[in-house]
Amino acid sequence: MHNFKFPISILFIATAISFSQTIEKEQTKIHNVLMQQRTAWNNGDIDGYMEGYWKSDSLVFTSGGNVTRGYDSTKAKYKRNYDTKDKMGTLEFSDLEISVLEENVAWVLGKWKLKRANDEPHGIFTLVMKKFDGEWKIVHDHTSSNN
Amino acid sequence: MHNFKFPISILFIATAISFSQTIEKEQTKIHNVLMQQRTAWNNGDIDGYMEGYWKSDSLVFTSGGNVTRGYDSTKAKYKRNYDTKDKMGTLEFSDLEISVLEENVAWVLGKWKLKRANDEPHGIFTLVMKKFDGEWKIVHDHTSSNN
Repeated sequence: MHNFKFPISILFIATAISFSQTIEKEQTKIHNVLMQQRTAWNNGDIDGYMEGYWKSDSLVFTSGGNVTRGYDSTKAKYKRNYDTKDKMGTLEFSDLEISVLEENVAWVLGKWKLKRANDEPHGIFTLVMKKFDGEWKIVHDHTSSNN
Repeated sequence: MHNFKFPISILFIATAISFSQTIEKEQTKIHNVLMQQRTAWNNGDIDGYMEGYWKSDSLVFTSGGNVTRGYDSTKAKYKRNYDTKDKMGTLEFSDLEISVLEENVAWVLGKWKLKRANDEPHGIFTLVMKKFDGEWKIVHDHTSSNN
């Protein structure tokens, strides 16, 4: 009798490697979205920063006890709160952790900091991200400040 | 010639209704997980409350600028911070919003409040939930306090 264990193991390992490669590929794509957001922010470009968010009325953003619903309201709030380059400061992300739950759904945990002339507001954020037509977008953002 | 628009529309509507029914069914299941957590909490039963969480080292819980990793550490932290019935108080959830992203992945946004003799700590939470073998579990929890 043949021993079938060997080819089955190979198949299993090959599948596991392929899955792990998919995860890594998606993590890289998500990481790139955040880096593009950071670059846009640091260029004073809130429109560019907002490209990371889902352009939908169903986007939900919560920060400091308030809930903002919809892409347009979220963008308007950012533009209202950060209407000068000084207020925007320099955005830094750290300790990014990207957990891909399904091929097209992930959560991201990270720390944010704004380096400004007179203060350095900072905190932790959780993003829920979904892939639409190959592009990862933030569908839910929970940002906490720890000042 | 036959007009094929009618049966195709029926099929489309039937699929849409079926999808919407699936979403509603999953939302109800998720709602029940939270209600069970609330009941357990209000019975002073942290073990029961923790049943809503994914029993995994990959569970990530963040609150007040701190990140706790793993089911055991999260449970230990709850037991340390809420070691008496007075500290636990009465837990209330409100404004629950359950967004089912995939058949087995959802996010939940809600408000929490602990009614205690001398204070009422409260805030907003985001949960990322995943369905394992038909059971929804919290895989990531971001809780903000707004005292």
